[in-house]
Amino acid sequence: MKKSLLALAALTAFAGAASAQSSVTLFGIVDAGIARLSAGGKSVTGMTNSGYNSSRLGFRGVEDMGGGLQAGFWIEGALSNDDGNAAGMNWQRRSTVSLMGGFGEIRLGRDYTPTFWNLTVYDPWGTNGIGQAASIALVPGNQATAVRSNNAISYFLPAMGGFQGQVMYAFGENVSGGAKTNNYLGFRFGYAAGPVSVHAAYAKVEGATDAADVKDMNIAGSFDAGVVKATLVYAQEKNGAGAKATYIEPGIQVPLGAGMFKATYGRYDLKDSSNDFNKIALGYHYNMSKRTTLYTTYARISNKGASAAVVSNNGLAIAGAAGRNASGFEFGVRHAF
Amino acid sequence: MKKSLLALAALTAFAGAASAQSSVTLFGIVDAGIARLSAGGKSVTGMTNSGYNSSRLGFRGVEDMGGGLQAGFWIEGALSNDDGNAAGMNWQRRSTVSLMGGFGEIRLGRDYTPTFWNLTVYDPWGTNGIGQAASIALVPGNQATAVRSNNAISYFLPAMGGFQGQVMYAFGENVSGGAKTNNYLGFRFGYAAGPVSVHAAYAKVEGATDAADVKDMNIAGSFDAGVVKATLVYAQEKNGAGAKATYIEPGIQVPLGAGMFKATYGRYDLKDSSNDFNKIALGYHYNMSKRTTLYTTYARISNKGASAAVVSNNGLAIAGAAGRNASGFEFGVRHAF
Amino acid sequence: MKKSLLALAALTAFAGAASAQSSVTLFGIVDAGIARLSAGGKSVTGMTNSGYNSSRLGFRGVEDMGGGLQAGFWIEGALSNDDGNAAGMNWQRRSTVSLMGGFGEIRLGRDYTPTFWNLTVYDPWGTNGIGQAASIALVPGNQATAVRSNNAISYFLPAMGGFQGQVMYAFGENVSGGAKTNNYLGFRFGYAAGPVSVHAAYAKVEGATDAADVKDMNIAGSFDAGVVKATLVYAQEKNGAGAKATYIEPGIQVPLGAGMFKATYGRYDLKDSSNDFNKIALGYHYNMSKRTTLYTTYARISNKGASAAVVSNNGLAIAGAAGRNASGFEFGVRHAF
Repeated sequence: MKKSLLALAALTAFAGAASAQSSVTLFGIVDAGIARLSAGGKSVTGMTNSGYNSSRLGFRGVEDMGGGLQAGFWIEGALSNDDGNAAGMNWQRRSTVSLMGGFGEIRLGRDYTPTFWNLTVYDPWGTNGIGQAASIALVPGNQATAVRSNNAISYFLPAMGGFQGQVMYAFGENVSGGAKTNNYLGFRFGYAAGPVSVHAAYAKVEGATDAADVKDMNIAGSFDAGVVKATLVYAQEKNGAGAKATYIEPGIQVPLGAGMFKATYGRYDLKDSSNDFNKIALGYHYNMSKRTTLYTTYARISNKGASAAVVSNNGLAIAGAAGRNASGFEFGVRHAF
Repeated sequence: MKKSLLALAALTAFAGAASAQSSVTLFGIVDAGIARLSAGGKSVTGMTNSGYNSSRLGFRGVEDMGGGLQAGFWIEGALSNDDGNAAGMNWQRRSTVSLMGGFGEIRLGRDYTPTFWNLTVYDPWGTNGIGQAASIALVPGNQATAVRSNNAISYFLPAMGGFQGQVMYAFGENVSGGAKTNNYLGFRFGYAAGPVSVHAAYAKVEGATDAADVKDMNIAGSFDAGVVKATLVYAQEKNGAGAKATYIEPGIQVPLGAGMFKATYGRYDLKDSSNDFNKIALGYHYNMSKRTTLYTTYARISNKGASAAVVSNNGLAIAGAAGRNASGFEFGVRHAF
Repeated sequence: MKKSLLALAALTAFAGAASAQSSVTLFGIVDAGIARLSAGGKSVTGMTNSGYNSSRLGFRGVEDMGGGLQAGFWIEGALSNDDGNAAGMNWQRRSTVSLMGGFGEIRLGRDYTPTFWNLTVYDPWGTNGIGQAASIALVPGNQATAVRSNNAISYFLPAMGGFQGQVMYAFGENVSGGAKTNNYLGFRFGYAAGPVSVHAAYAKVEGATDAADVKDMNIAGSFDAGVVKATLVYAQEKNGAGAKATYIEPGIQVPLGAGMFKATYGRYDLKDSSNDFNKIALGYHYNMSKRTTLYTTYARISNKGASAAVVSNNGLAIAGAAGRNASGFEFGVRHAF
């Protein structure tokens, strides 16, 4: 994902102390589109946000502390620019403080879970818009940490050839003697070099009951042959009540002119059940400039049994109907700053 | 309205791409005052915000994409600086992304409706503070889009001599087969050259029932003779239940020293009813500098029949009483950044 | 408290007016820690924010208006960076506009009360984290203005040798004829020169009933002998129902290497009651750089009678138990930008 950064020259001033150079970056994305969603014979047309990239506003900075050590912060919140954040602004996309050096990075705060991050990196849709992989929250249970977790401490390995790794533990903050919930432990490891990239992630989160515990595993990779980039995402979830579901999504991305054609085919399979669905998504995005992109996407879900999945988007919603197909079409513009 | 802009030098950086120059502007207004409101024999004294200009914080920017095309974004939210935004921060003043060029501008997101914009441009009070024109939400019905609309797509004509025009359509986002509401269609056209400026606007918004549909029409203009500027605002609203109301407000603005004297007289008339009122407002603002202004305003409403209109303000409230007069006095300071 | 400032070059532009130089500063703190709180035989471990300094994001600026006059604004909100401001972002730490000159400063908006400010200035913990003085809200009653007040107008004396003073009046904004509440009147005066600093503050706030009225008085000072700085905070509160409570906290701060050792001992005493407690707190902070600090703190509360006070923190909570002791331990990192 291309991202433009506003790098501000910064003059740090301290009471009774000499000044030092540093930098703070203001950054963001405003992404708006028009979409039509259909399901169960009904439809809705309207405006969406985040169809290509998640709309956001953020501030981040790094301080060089000398001796190979850095400190940094990152606060970032979602923009729902179709309604002006009617539900209020927050910094729930990321709110972290980090210490970095040759040892890697220690990061404290609210952040993506490693399991979600692995899914979004390899999904050609970046888990955004109507094409996005239906790869999270596959089973009932505690899905509060399906995307991000509060109260998390993460460790990231330093650069080591093509090897990469991270571990996150998040506190459920349960008072002793009561139910335990939201304790999350997850990690992500992998390798990226030349045309090949592959990562696996695993996590366990506790629910309010044992049945609501969720175990999350995924493995994903890509091979970039230049004229085409192939991706594969495989995600599996189990809960403490015995439910197990998988989502597998092969995809391709083909550079075409000043843009990219994308196609994915996903299959959701719930064990011991015929309530499954598959999803096909096709799209093209055209880069008007380095920061501004036009995009259009079509997606269709075929529900089986009692499955009532819908093509979903930010800012527009439709209810699904058991066993009925669902589809969506959108076009929009993504502007980064 | 004078507005100061913080223009930040920006360095745009992209993964694997050359950098380009651009700019992001941080801007805002903090306006606070002390006011006393009276109605029906009761009164309240306290602190208000936005008595002269709406208090706000925003970020906006424009990217030159070459070939005469630009992309831009604008996110802006209200500051209720008397209570520190106790109800939470959002970006509901404006959240848009635009494509601009010789063809004009296409704008997507939450924004002012053309009908409201026409009223605020010509009201000497800018529809702010206790003097503001009582020119919106004149009849019962769906007034959700009286000032701004979510999910809107607008087209603005390019500069063409003194002619200006804009059209907005906003999606109600109603699922097919159910009630329709919030679909908004409106436009504004006019002419401004030399001392003369005049614009008309029209809109229709759907309510949850046909009776709640609202049709909105206004025409307003100004003539600037130098020593005095005369304005006239005429607004008319009808709902689907047959109610019709008008508001007419002649006004003058007289430059006086480093400031401006303002006076308006407004008449609200509900058809087939004697529940009407009129409003007189007098004020003076003094520019301490380009960005900082002191202001004072007095307004009085004479209610007839069962009308219970009050002089209103942001951050201070009093209930009206049928047929009883209402008044208000405020003084404050407006600082732009 | 050290604070880094991002000073942005600003270009102020006005419609039809010449431009002028000014400045806006973006500033903030992200402070995160891990803490374990115990009380009544139970415990909770988790992530906290603001353990050393309050996490925050803000914008402020000053305009030189000539003739020795300045105008300024300050908007600042809390960051709860352990959960990404799950409860929403606001600007309730401070939202003010000021006029400044040789006469001092007049400030309008939401701000600290003088009574709270005096307590936080002299508490070695800055009323942050588990060590903080338990010096506010000592009695039942209207404590809405214990820390800050909405709708406030303050006057600050200009610099006069070592003498300092401020008065705040805040409007309760009660409609005449009804109950009065939230009207606040308070002041703070004192002297600071060389190693000596001492200030006293007093306030009265009206509650919804006379019994809920609260009178607040405190006096605090410090003596800085170089190798050690001694502080003393004495706070007293009375309500309209006859309750009276005091908190007294002697403390020391000892520079040690690139950091500071701190220790305080506080006693809470409720008149005509044995439901009292005392609190001991020990801590050390180490400055990794001018903007980044590591800190660790231990605190213990001994409750007597039915007192159920706990060691408290932002983002982590435990319930107290009557007459049972409570304690806490935390370590964290504070990064300013």
